Amino acid sequence: MKRFTSVHDIGDLKQAVAEALEIKRDRFQYTGLGRNRTLLMIFFNSSLRTRLSTEKAALNLGMNVMVLDVNQGAWKLETERGVVMDGDKAEHLLEAIPVMGCYCDVIGVRSFARLSDKAVDYEERILEQFIRHSGRPVFSMEAATRHPLQSFADLITIEEHKRVARPKVVLTWAPHPNALPQAVPNSFAEWMNAADYDLVITHPVGYELDPRFVGNARVEYDQRKAFAGADFIYAKNWSAYADPHYGEVLSRDRAWTVDREKMALTNDAFFMHCLPVRRNMIVTDEVIESPRSLVIPEAANREIAAQVVLKRLLEAL
Amino acid sequence: MKRFTSVHDIGDLKQAVAEALEIKRDRFQYTGLGRNRTLLMIFFNSSLRTRLSTEKAALNLGMNVMVLDVNQGAWKLETERGVVMDGDKAEHLLEAIPVMGCYCDVIGVRSFARLSDKAVDYEERILEQFIRHSGRPVFSMEAATRHPLQSFADLITIEEHKRVARPKVVLTWAPHPNALPQAVPNSFAEWMNAADYDLVITHPVGYELDPRFVGNARVEYDQRKAFAGADFIYAKNWSAYADPHYGEVLSRDRAWTVDREKMALTNDAFFMHCLPVRRNMIVTDEVIESPRSLVIPEAANREIAAQVVLKRLLEAL
Amino acid sequence: MKRFTSVHDIGDLKQAVAEALEIKRDRFQYTGLGRNRTLLMIFFNSSLRTRLSTEKAALNLGMNVMVLDVNQGAWKLETERGVVMDGDKAEHLLEAIPVMGCYCDVIGVRSFARLSDKAVDYEERILEQFIRHSGRPVFSMEAATRHPLQSFADLITIEEHKRVARPKVVLTWAPHPNALPQAVPNSFAEWMNAADYDLVITHPVGYELDPRFVGNARVEYDQRKAFAGADFIYAKNWSAYADPHYGEVLSRDRAWTVDREKMALTNDAFFMHCLPVRRNMIVTDEVIESPRSLVIPEAANREIAAQVVLKRLLEAL
Repeated sequence: MKRFTSVHDIGDLKQAVAEALEIKRDRFQYTGLGRNRTLLMIFFNSSLRTRLSTEKAALNLGMNVMVLDVNQGAWKLETERGVVMDGDKAEHLLEAIPVMGCYCDVIGVRSFARLSDKAVDYEERILEQFIRHSGRPVFSMEAATRHPLQSFADLITIEEHKRVARPKVVLTWAPHPNALPQAVPNSFAEWMNAADYDLVITHPVGYELDPRFVGNARVEYDQRKAFAGADFIYAKNWSAYADPHYGEVLSRDRAWTVDREKMALTNDAFFMHCLPVRRNMIVTDEVIESPRSLVIPEAANREIAAQVVLKRLLEAL
Repeated sequence: MKRFTSVHDIGDLKQAVAEALEIKRDRFQYTGLGRNRTLLMIFFNSSLRTRLSTEKAALNLGMNVMVLDVNQGAWKLETERGVVMDGDKAEHLLEAIPVMGCYCDVIGVRSFARLSDKAVDYEERILEQFIRHSGRPVFSMEAATRHPLQSFADLITIEEHKRVARPKVVLTWAPHPNALPQAVPNSFAEWMNAADYDLVITHPVGYELDPRFVGNARVEYDQRKAFAGADFIYAKNWSAYADPHYGEVLSRDRAWTVDREKMALTNDAFFMHCLPVRRNMIVTDEVIESPRSLVIPEAANREIAAQVVLKRLLEAL
Repeated sequence: MKRFTSVHDIGDLKQAVAEALEIKRDRFQYTGLGRNRTLLMIFFNSSLRTRLSTEKAALNLGMNVMVLDVNQGAWKLETERGVVMDGDKAEHLLEAIPVMGCYCDVIGVRSFARLSDKAVDYEERILEQFIRHSGRPVFSMEAATRHPLQSFADLITIEEHKRVARPKVVLTWAPHPNALPQAVPNSFAEWMNAADYDLVITHPVGYELDPRFVGNARVEYDQRKAFAGADFIYAKNWSAYADPHYGEVLSRDRAWTVDREKMALTNDAFFMHCLPVRRNMIVTDEVIESPRSLVIPEAANREIAAQVVLKRLLEAL
């Protein structure tokens, strides 16, 4: 594997999950693989789970890890050619990226959508420039339009808990005070479709996702209907994708909050969320604390997902 | 050892000091113990000595170390149940803590008193929630009411330098511009009492510490009388504990500064302070730079204290 | 080697370059040397290349690395004796530095010129205090008046690319929006002189460097004349050194920008810059992207230069 930015990079999903479960049984069986190899993690946006789980995965493989928090400092990068750089941008991406590539073997990049220009976000400009100019294998630690390490962890978690070969999985929008990117729902839909699950997406009118990610999933505007018979409820907020409201909050309607009464409509479904979660906006205390809540095992699988990805990138060096 | 939050967790003090001195002779004799083990250090407040000494101790044991600075980012955690999280708090401690526990084997937590509500501070809410919800052994890197790694280092330092079996140790308040927690003096008193030293505490009226920490120590309001015949002078500022002035600065009286003239009243005592120290408020340049000053060896023993604690936590995994 | 603050610490340059090239052939041949050794990197100013390349070099040698960002926090250090520390400075350098020395084996320090007081800057007060009080070997990761790791990397790069035994090397001033220290040009001149290259320095009137660094180099105020027959063009901005304009920007004249037309005057020279570079101020897109641009190999050699320095410091422990 030469890069990891979406489900398309990982090949056969059954094999990827099998590899994940094998690593989970003994996560220190490949400590020689990362010897004298250095992972550079670059954060243009802050992180808790992604940073810790990816760092842990790299350490499990015997790698060295260096972390660069671009967001904390005042390090502003120019991205255009031809600009006379006499302002506040101290460096050009065309120098910064190859230099970062000099000091490591693998690069992880986190760079969120800014939600002000759909074309810029959906081009994945930052991630693509790292792929083009760093000279190193690059993987996404959440980019503007996808969060594939999260989705891979979600897939592993569902495979560990499913009771039927092809479970009904419901991705439901839920309210949040702020405008959030579509990366997690886009990516989740892409992976669930690739796994050939029975995927239903439910959200208020206006929250339609990019059709390239929705694929063959059914869209159901009535949340209760969507929940009927579900094996897994995956809750997430996102901002509008459709023009002219790209990046906007259209609703904070708490009628969409996942609660016990709605969970009772399901086939005793498991509850999932990528975290961090706004309690009593996205989901009630009761549901997230219930025995059917998978939010912690799901987060724990982030380490496993990252380790499979790093292992494959190392094997291809 | 399953946790380390106070002197009560460490068992026999003579044995703990012996173990410390054995480690000090060769701090790399247990590098196998931490193999494939990860320490997560979480700082809700900033740190120099604690971070470096604890990280060094973990590296001496062959551990991997991950550091999370909660204070630097804008990461605000909700701590109450039932709250509709539609404000600026992005995550609930009840998710954040177990997730952090997923990615490590041992957790160190630093979380200071806020000095606005005595009950909240003395409950040690943050530390206790990590103990309850992380699923990992937890140790304090200074909490609201105690700083046991500091006190353990202080004990080691006194044991290395004492000239009599039961030295007279004087904990003296000294002035400081800001309102500081009582964690260091509380903890120091607790450890000195546990070591059965002859402990005297001296401070202006109004600065009485919690009686649970004072124990059988003598309280002497005349600093000069307290210093008479002392073997060790341990200076520290703290804010008021007693109601209704909890957390307040009652005095900045530089008549309490430790100087050469007062040190002359002692039994050629050693001078100690946990650092950072405000020179010429807490202590004069002359005293802190004198040959009897132990502030640097004391700081160096922070690494040893942390290594004993980590070693014992690792052994009990 | 007991310290590394200038070319004077490194001894014979031919031997140093030979050692660098040997390490570059296999940078993992000395992984045992750093075993159980800890590098502490202290940044009073922010860093990208220096931090990553030095950390990587230390990891190549098997060292542990701890990073302290003094600039990010609010950690203000008192540097004078006799001050009553009742203000915003929480700690004195005379405690902070020896304490940092307790927890590591080697210390790297970055501390820029402040450009407000030439005497203070050229005394190298911070760096010298670390040398005097830390009890550890200290190396500069760019100090007020020199950047020797950069200059060493520059030397290696020139040695790798030169076509004649004694190349003509031109250090040219170029415009920049901000006031920058003289550390890079000072240091570059010092190393080029020590290597006995044919060094020419060109800049507008008023930008004369400290004569101790200029040494026997020729100063040429006509940039085009300076470029004639050059083998290497090394561009850099700096602020004025001469009184009464110390630290000031005297010119932002883009007639000094390095462009294709000027490069055509040279002996097909290579272009060098330490990065970060302001494109179209210092150099045009065209020149920096040309096949003769060495900016990326030069940055890559930062790791090698740091590794030679760390190797020698470790060997002398």
